[in-house]
Amino acid sequence: MRIDKILVATTNKGKLKEFKKLFGDLGIQILSLDDMPEKIKVEEDRETFLENAVKKAKEYGDFYKIPVIAEDAGLEVEALKNYPGVYSARFYSIDFGGVYQIKESIDRTNIEKLLDLLKDEKNRKARFVSVVVFYIPEDFGLWTEGYCYGKIAEKPEGEKGFGYDPVFIPEGYKKTMAELDLEEKNRISHRGKAVRKLMEKLRYLLS
Amino acid sequence: MRIDKILVATTNKGKLKEFKKLFGDLGIQILSLDDMPEKIKVEEDRETFLENAVKKAKEYGDFYKIPVIAEDAGLEVEALKNYPGVYSARFYSIDFGGVYQIKESIDRTNIEKLLDLLKDEKNRKARFVSVVVFYIPEDFGLWTEGYCYGKIAEKPEGEKGFGYDPVFIPEGYKKTMAELDLEEKNRISHRGKAVRKLMEKLRYLLS
Repeated sequence: MRIDKILVATTNKGKLKEFKKLFGDLGIQILSLDDMPEKIKVEEDRETFLENAVKKAKEYGDFYKIPVIAEDAGLEVEALKNYPGVYSARFYSIDFGGVYQIKESIDRTNIEKLLDLLKDEKNRKARFVSVVVFYIPEDFGLWTEGYCYGKIAEKPEGEKGFGYDPVFIPEGYKKTMAELDLEEKNRISHRGKAVRKLMEKLRYLLS
Repeated sequence: MRIDKILVATTNKGKLKEFKKLFGDLGIQILSLDDMPEKIKVEEDRETFLENAVKKAKEYGDFYKIPVIAEDAGLEVEALKNYPGVYSARFYSIDFGGVYQIKESIDRTNIEKLLDLLKDEKNRKARFVSVVVFYIPEDFGLWTEGYCYGKIAEKPEGEKGFGYDPVFIPEGYKKTMAELDLEEKNRISHRGKAVRKLMEKLRYLLS
């Protein structure tokens, strides 16, 4: 099957740029939600990364009637029963562990809460999870999962990346994800792994 | 990638038999939930066929750590805002349209309620929907969708098949799904279409 356009269901410029680069090879035009004339709102209100990503892909795809890519991702911390999980982006605002007021930025406030909850905790094991979904309306869908295992640092280090990168030390590393160059991060990251696996399978299915 | 076992997440003997036949060609052993030593319960409590099927595949796969196939299917009737939909199997018992007491069988009671709701209704357009999900734990998932368009008959005809088959007249036919031989039904049915599409894609991905 040949397709000529894919909607990447994000307004995040960074993610969009990555997908454009990845799909350029296949000669497929990448659109974002900003390119769509009519807007719809899809809530990410499910209990798992997979269900959020599937829901986004399905609802945008069925509405716009073009192939869609959607992603959901987050951090799971073993000692916190896998929280923040699907609440990673708005961890500061949920009841679990207490509601925090935003100070410097949302990212920094989420990190502050995380480090407070892990104070004096010896088990600092954590993993980043990414689920990427590709969907062709009324035909088929494909999802891949990517994981990056590591531990939570005692304090933030590094200025690159975003989210919890400054407190996440990948396995086999002595520095945080926020201290890695983008190229190195992509090589080991949850999102990098999930996207490469997706691309590999799509090469078969779309050729 | 080669796999040697697949769990079909059903206790329905008919579905299991179909999958065994389909996967025999690929030299893959088919297990059912009855073959699993430890039991878990996965509720089909989501709002869409896709989310129910994805949830089942994901939860069984992650628990048993083997590749899984899961399906969800049902009838959507245009004049009833796509009800019974995900409630197809227990339509008699839900508030929409009023709760019915089971008489002869659940299937017959569901059909009785459906025909009552469509009394004097001119728009009898309906479709069967099937979503089939294949999932390899912590790796990837694939789903396909199959549709069978038709209309709701004025009264039940035929004794084959199950569910709403006796009141569903497929497009281009003058008899109900319950009057078709299994082979003919599989050729045009929502489940047949979804499963064939899935097999076709798995042949690429698992070879």
